[in-house]
Amino acid sequence: MRDTTAGASATGVITSRENRWLKEFRVALRGGVPTAEGAVGVEGVRLVEEALGSGCRVQAVLISEGGERHREKLAPFLGRPEMAFPVLRTTDRLFEGIADTEHPQGVAALVVPRKVDLDELLATPRGACAPLMVVLAGVQDPGNVGTILRTAAAFGATGCVTTATGQSGTASPFAPKALRASAGAALHLPIVSGMALGILLTQLKLSGIHTLASCVHEEERGALRSSGQAMAPWEVDWCQPIALLVGNEGAGLPQEIVHSADGSIHIPMASRVESLNAAAAAAVVLYEAYRQRKKGSGE
Amino acid sequence: MRDTTAGASATGVITSRENRWLKEFRVALRGGVPTAEGAVGVEGVRLVEEALGSGCRVQAVLISEGGERHREKLAPFLGRPEMAFPVLRTTDRLFEGIADTEHPQGVAALVVPRKVDLDELLATPRGACAPLMVVLAGVQDPGNVGTILRTAAAFGATGCVTTATGQSGTASPFAPKALRASAGAALHLPIVSGMALGILLTQLKLSGIHTLASCVHEEERGALRSSGQAMAPWEVDWCQPIALLVGNEGAGLPQEIVHSADGSIHIPMASRVESLNAAAAAAVVLYEAYRQRKKGSGE
Repeated sequence: MRDTTAGASATGVITSRENRWLKEFRVALRGGVPTAEGAVGVEGVRLVEEALGSGCRVQAVLISEGGERHREKLAPFLGRPEMAFPVLRTTDRLFEGIADTEHPQGVAALVVPRKVDLDELLATPRGACAPLMVVLAGVQDPGNVGTILRTAAAFGATGCVTTATGQSGTASPFAPKALRASAGAALHLPIVSGMALGILLTQLKLSGIHTLASCVHEEERGALRSSGQAMAPWEVDWCQPIALLVGNEGAGLPQEIVHSADGSIHIPMASRVESLNAAAAAAVVLYEAYRQRKKGSGE
Repeated sequence: MRDTTAGASATGVITSRENRWLKEFRVALRGGVPTAEGAVGVEGVRLVEEALGSGCRVQAVLISEGGERHREKLAPFLGRPEMAFPVLRTTDRLFEGIADTEHPQGVAALVVPRKVDLDELLATPRGACAPLMVVLAGVQDPGNVGTILRTAAAFGATGCVTTATGQSGTASPFAPKALRASAGAALHLPIVSGMALGILLTQLKLSGIHTLASCVHEEERGALRSSGQAMAPWEVDWCQPIALLVGNEGAGLPQEIVHSADGSIHIPMASRVESLNAAAAAAVVLYEAYRQRKKGSGE
């Protein structure tokens, strides 16, 4: 581990190397996009801890003067010989200019999310009865994307796929707001991001994974009710290999996706006029899946 | 119904009356605080529709030039003789200066939330088997407050209490961000806001309403597990009169509240290191309550 000071050296001179790191941090944090090398930025003690413990490659850690008070919490990770990345120090003022949050805690990291193959997701991971995948198809709010990832990890989902950005695309799971909302789950839950929905559905079919369309909108439910397809979460057998499809917050899933899926679920509600937030709906469904899988495994 | 034009009259002169309304809208929307008369601001077609249909007193509606395209959707409400409030018109530019959102839809309303007595909440409403109250004690993110209200309404909660702001206070359910996240539920779900938690707990006890502390943190769960108190959501009898206590996103409920509650619940999760977002946790618990109550009522 090297420990250098960026922007706060004794002479007040920033070396070009330090300057390059500060720029990278700014791109990833304030800019909200991955660096040229594919690193994403995480900020705050909890997320940096998650990043250091995730097994993902950490490129650099940045600590401001005020952030020094958190160094002890990070020490177990920073002290390891395999952690061969620079730990840079900077002033609080420079940190504030780089950070994406209003009241930064003064610690940040650049971390490269694991590249996951779809094949990995399609296989049954150790300890799980069958794959339980969450497919985000058009979820546009990064907060919702992150919250769903957090919930998915908590309820034992084995992986997640996000569709390519664009018209019916999903917000990046690695954008700062999504990473924060995921409480770090985006770094340890296996994620394949930016897939074309059509190709994915074909792959799922070929792999014998049951696709379930989550329908939160009255119109979708109406269409499904007439065809007798829609099930309540507790009517689904969650111990089979399942991919849960979650659609856009406003428009839901495209009609053709709902119809081509192997099944559909809706969450019964007290009143027809009510609806659920996308992340709340996903939480309810994934809880039901976990409950059944836990029971099935005899835990 | 009167229809006046604020800030866009033929002569370009804004009357002092129109100017007063624009100021009120700005306080409520951009300022995010209730007006002197207790009105809160709602923005966007869907929320204004909710406000007009909520039975709450509407003080005024504001429509920009660009917002005119939504007038047809609102017409069923605006045309009624009992809707005796001014409908003001303004320019898109003035509207943007008043709005709280980045891409305003050009329609807004000032609406006075219903005053609800705690006694009303403590009584069993028509159609419900028993009161099911949600008590928000320290939920600080307005988005979480709104999402929980939306979920509570969807799953048949009979009312909500929010604790007084301050140290362990809860964000106002009527702040613009909370109103938006609630999708209007904040205007029709009976809410008592700003209560002192101690007084509330005494009242609940006197009324025979079972208090259940929702514990999402490992420490809380650890403390409870040793005392054998914590139940899984499905172990609770949700048909009895219940008040579900939801605490702060980071710190949870104060220890003394957890211990003085009649019972506690935790949501089993796949891994000890995971946790759930406050709104996701509330969704899971309220879903379970609804499922049991629906079954109990023989629906």
